[in-house]
Amino acid sequence: MKRIFFFLTAIAAFTGIAAFTAPVSGHVDDEAAPIYGIKIPSGCRDWNLISIGHLAGGNVKQLRAQLGNDIAMDGFRECTLPFQDGTIFAAPHWNEAASDENTKGLARGFPGAGLQSSVAGQFVNVQFMVKDSKKYAATGGWGFADFKDGKPGNETLHKTCFPCHQPAKERDYVFAHYAL
Amino acid sequence: MKRIFFFLTAIAAFTGIAAFTAPVSGHVDDEAAPIYGIKIPSGCRDWNLISIGHLAGGNVKQLRAQLGNDIAMDGFRECTLPFQDGTIFAAPHWNEAASDENTKGLARGFPGAGLQSSVAGQFVNVQFMVKDSKKYAATGGWGFADFKDGKPGNETLHKTCFPCHQPAKERDYVFAHYAL
Repeated sequence: MKRIFFFLTAIAAFTGIAAFTAPVSGHVDDEAAPIYGIKIPSGCRDWNLISIGHLAGGNVKQLRAQLGNDIAMDGFRECTLPFQDGTIFAAPHWNEAASDENTKGLARGFPGAGLQSSVAGQFVNVQFMVKDSKKYAATGGWGFADFKDGKPGNETLHKTCFPCHQPAKERDYVFAHYAL
Repeated sequence: MKRIFFFLTAIAAFTGIAAFTAPVSGHVDDEAAPIYGIKIPSGCRDWNLISIGHLAGGNVKQLRAQLGNDIAMDGFRECTLPFQDGTIFAAPHWNEAASDENTKGLARGFPGAGLQSSVAGQFVNVQFMVKDSKKYAATGGWGFADFKDGKPGNETLHKTCFPCHQPAKERDYVFAHYAL
C-alpha cells in the first residue's frame, strides 16, 4: 500500500504544478493574455500567502488562494495604498473536493463533532493582477490575466476583469485583505 | 470613504498578524506547547503555500491553509517520503466570513451566475507539525502544537493530534497534498 499511496501523491502534485507553472518551463504554449499581454510570472507558486476564500453558486464550488510577490507583500504589511508598480498578485483556484481521509482523521480527534473536510481538488485556473500605473492607466493601473491549463482565456473573458474589481476601487481595486 | 476603507484594511491585517506571530515578537507569552515543547517558529507566515481546505460541522465553518518551510517544500517537490528532519508545517485556520463586496464584484463580472464569495475572517488558531525522528520517535517522528491568540492549547488538546493523523500513516502522517 505504501507504494500506491506514494504514487497517488506524486500524480496529484504533478498535476497541480503542471497547470500552474508549465508555461514558465516552456512545456506548453507560452502565450500572453489578451488585452494586457501578461504571461505567467516565473516563480509565482513560491510567493507569500495573502488570504484564502471559497466560492459557490450554480455548479461552481471552489477553494481559492491569493498570493503576492515581495512588492505586493510590502504594500500589505506597510498598509500603504495604492500598491506600488511591480506589485503582482496570483490567485490560483481549485474545485473543492471532499476529503474522506481528513474527515476520518477529524473523527478520531474530535469524535461526535461531525466535522466534514474538503480540500483543493482539480486545478481550475490562475489569475494575475500586475500593477503598472502607466501601461495600464486605463484600467486603474492594473493589468489582468486568466490562465487555464497554462493557456490564457480569450478577450471576452479578460474584458470582465476590471469591471469585476470596481467595487474595490477604494482599496486600489484589490479585494483581498492580508490574513496572516 | 478612502480613509475608512484603508483603516478597516489596516485593522484586519493587524488582527491576523498579531494572532499568528505575536509570540515571536514577544508581545504575548512566548509559551511552548505541552508534550512536544514547540513554540511558534519565526517567519512562518512567509512560508510557501502547500494547499488549502474547508472544514464544516456543527457551528464550525472554517477556511484552512497549510504552509511549509523550505525542507517541507523540498519533500513535496521531490516526492520523497518520509519528510526529512527539520520539516515544519504550519496550518492557520480562520472562521469563514461571507464577503459582500467580493460577491458584488462577481455579480458584475458574471451577472446571473449567483456566485457567493466567502473569505478568511476571524483568526481561529494555527497548528504546527515539526519533524524530529529521534525526539518525537513515539509519535511517528512528529511533534505537534496548537496555538490560539498566541497561546498554546492544553495537554488534553495536544493528545488528540497524533491519533488524528493516524489515517495518513502511509504518507508519513501528513494529510496535505501539494496543490500548486
